[in-house]
Amino acid sequence: MPQDCANSIDAALRGRARRVIPGGLWGHLNAANLPEGYPQFFASAEGCRLRDADGREFVDLMCAWGPMVLGYRHPAVEDAARRQAERGDAMNGPAPILVDLAETLVDMIPHADWCLLEKNGTDATTACVTIARAGTGRRKVLVARGSYHGAAPWCTPSLAGVTAEDRAHILHFDYNDAASLQAAAEDAKGDLAAVIVTAFRHDMGRDLELPDPAFAQAVRAVCDAAGAALILDDVRARFRLHLGGSWETIGVRPDLAAYSKAIANGHALAAVTGNEDFRDAATRIYTTGSFWCAAVPMAAAVATLAELQRIDGPGHMRAMGERLRAGLDALAARHGIGIRQSGPPQMPLLLFDDDTEWRRGSVFCAAALRAGAYFHPKHNMFLSCAHTAADIDLALQAAEEGFAAVACMG
Amino acid sequence: MPQDCANSIDAALRGRARRVIPGGLWGHLNAANLPEGYPQFFASAEGCRLRDADGREFVDLMCAWGPMVLGYRHPAVEDAARRQAERGDAMNGPAPILVDLAETLVDMIPHADWCLLEKNGTDATTACVTIARAGTGRRKVLVARGSYHGAAPWCTPSLAGVTAEDRAHILHFDYNDAASLQAAAEDAKGDLAAVIVTAFRHDMGRDLELPDPAFAQAVRAVCDAAGAALILDDVRARFRLHLGGSWETIGVRPDLAAYSKAIANGHALAAVTGNEDFRDAATRIYTTGSFWCAAVPMAAAVATLAELQRIDGPGHMRAMGERLRAGLDALAARHGIGIRQSGPPQMPLLLFDDDTEWRRGSVFCAAALRAGAYFHPKHNMFLSCAHTAADIDLALQAAEEGFAAVACMG
Repeated sequence: MPQDCANSIDAALRGRARRVIPGGLWGHLNAANLPEGYPQFFASAEGCRLRDADGREFVDLMCAWGPMVLGYRHPAVEDAARRQAERGDAMNGPAPILVDLAETLVDMIPHADWCLLEKNGTDATTACVTIARAGTGRRKVLVARGSYHGAAPWCTPSLAGVTAEDRAHILHFDYNDAASLQAAAEDAKGDLAAVIVTAFRHDMGRDLELPDPAFAQAVRAVCDAAGAALILDDVRARFRLHLGGSWETIGVRPDLAAYSKAIANGHALAAVTGNEDFRDAATRIYTTGSFWCAAVPMAAAVATLAELQRIDGPGHMRAMGERLRAGLDALAARHGIGIRQSGPPQMPLLLFDDDTEWRRGSVFCAAALRAGAYFHPKHNMFLSCAHTAADIDLALQAAEEGFAAVACMG
Repeated sequence: MPQDCANSIDAALRGRARRVIPGGLWGHLNAANLPEGYPQFFASAEGCRLRDADGREFVDLMCAWGPMVLGYRHPAVEDAARRQAERGDAMNGPAPILVDLAETLVDMIPHADWCLLEKNGTDATTACVTIARAGTGRRKVLVARGSYHGAAPWCTPSLAGVTAEDRAHILHFDYNDAASLQAAAEDAKGDLAAVIVTAFRHDMGRDLELPDPAFAQAVRAVCDAAGAALILDDVRARFRLHLGGSWETIGVRPDLAAYSKAIANGHALAAVTGNEDFRDAATRIYTTGSFWCAAVPMAAAVATLAELQRIDGPGHMRAMGERLRAGLDALAARHGIGIRQSGPPQMPLLLFDDDTEWRRGSVFCAAALRAGAYFHPKHNMFLSCAHTAADIDLALQAAEEGFAAVACMG
């Protein structure tokens, strides 16, 4: 197909984009970070299928990097969004749907007594940190080394334009290492406002790690002992692992939690939930945005959450993820290729053994893409409720081409 | 109408909201800050008319606090949004409409060689500051005392949860006071990264001030002398005063500018534009969000900008604002009430003389609201292209009731 070629539609769009957008595109969706042949621009999407600007169609395993949890253009979600859009979206205040959504979140999430809504995951994690500081009157925040919590100065992975003071009160520990956590808490002494942790360890390019329950309990104990807030950054994992919150399965509840991505099946929305201890602090901080009361994404969220509950979305995604994982293991074994699969099945990562600079992963992905499946070589992938067993089997057929290409590398 | 009553639909929604949302609502749309009788929840909107949850209809002079520039549910914008939604919104990368929008912005805006897109005005102002620091290798940012630049720790108006370090490199000057600007630049010495200024002085509750051209030239001169970035925070004013940028009329061009609010007629979008000097820095910083490549708001923005150009939106809004201003002046004079009107006609503010705590303004607004027009007692208002002379005259009829109520205060 022509997308690899200099005269493809994608290449022409990239050329135009480079003139008017620094680096061709900001942030995590820049295709410059992807293997040869990956498209930058997409024409359309439906269910778990993506069509690029040159008309190639893929079984998608990235789900817009998380937001697409029920499937692109899900009828029930889009109907709810359209019905709200026919009444109003951004107005001088919210629509009644805000109250329905807030009640739904508080009912669904055991630790939650209240919620705030925003637009970005970064809005939500930053609000959690600010609420924790306001509520405790303290400043230090413990962050796992290498964890991604957003793109604000206190947490963005690039230090360009960031000052030392932006991170003056950030202390580090290692994920799943209770001793390092306790040492960092010691360093914070009487100034510990919060510990922020992702639902599982999902640092780009390395094996995913589920949270050790003893570690999760240690996080809770450190926060309880210090009177600090346990902030669960559930932006990436939320609504795929457990509808009550990603740590419900290990029985550890946060004081504050941040969500975004999948909450409205692709409509722009983020949320913070919190318990009574932090309600007053959440009232005192000032956090807002021009579109934070817009009603359409809220209507989409209510429909998304109802559908996830109705069909047991996490269960379906787990089953599809397990089918994918078993299939990839079998294919790799048949080709004699060493791979490692990690993470929850709903958000899988495939890495190759002895793979300097993800070269094998890139060859695998490029070949699988040509065969019709969109894998990622080093970031966790995402399953959706739109993936059927037949879709997974199509992805596995494409993966077969990928493993064959890796086998040719010798 | 029943909205004032304890048994109104609005009151019932507020009661439910208070249980699940701290303070009943976050941020600037919390109706607790508004006069008696103002609704919190809105059922629908069309053109320049808003309908609250209890079915009362108003001629709206707040325009969703800025985003609604063409009118609620504008057919051309909503058609463009719907057509894009039928193809795709958030995907693994942008749709081709991104390139169209970026080229439109760069063509429309004389200082712009490139753009970035985000979701919130705060995203855009924060990205400007980060780009300025990355580009200059310096840290200090000069901010006008009392200016609102967003809700991030470096700029949010509440200090709850904010640390001193979040603002360690912020220095202050007074808007329209070149001497204070020069003094602040002196204090920054060799560490001046940027001066950030709003398009005009629009601090809540006080008379608006247009920028003195000599002051604007002084900002440019200070930045040029220091090799610092002039950041125009055009989030609030953008696309109402001049389509090329709000300082085009005074002939001073920024290096970086931030937009949001009206850019997509209510769809969630923000933008940064910059010149060549800062392209490399904009490439090096890391700024992103889950929905920043979503295609629907971009399609809405392209349609919004085309329509604003086609109908000379700023000219129409100026004419309607002048009609409103003249009418209010005449009514106030007839009632013998001292008022002050300030700001550009497209974004007017009405304040009453000798008005401690905006009591007269609140009485005026409450009475005008009962008569069918939604004014604001202390924040600048917004005209839209949907306001016709007949709508302005309806708002003036309601204002007549407002002035009569103020006259009764004695």
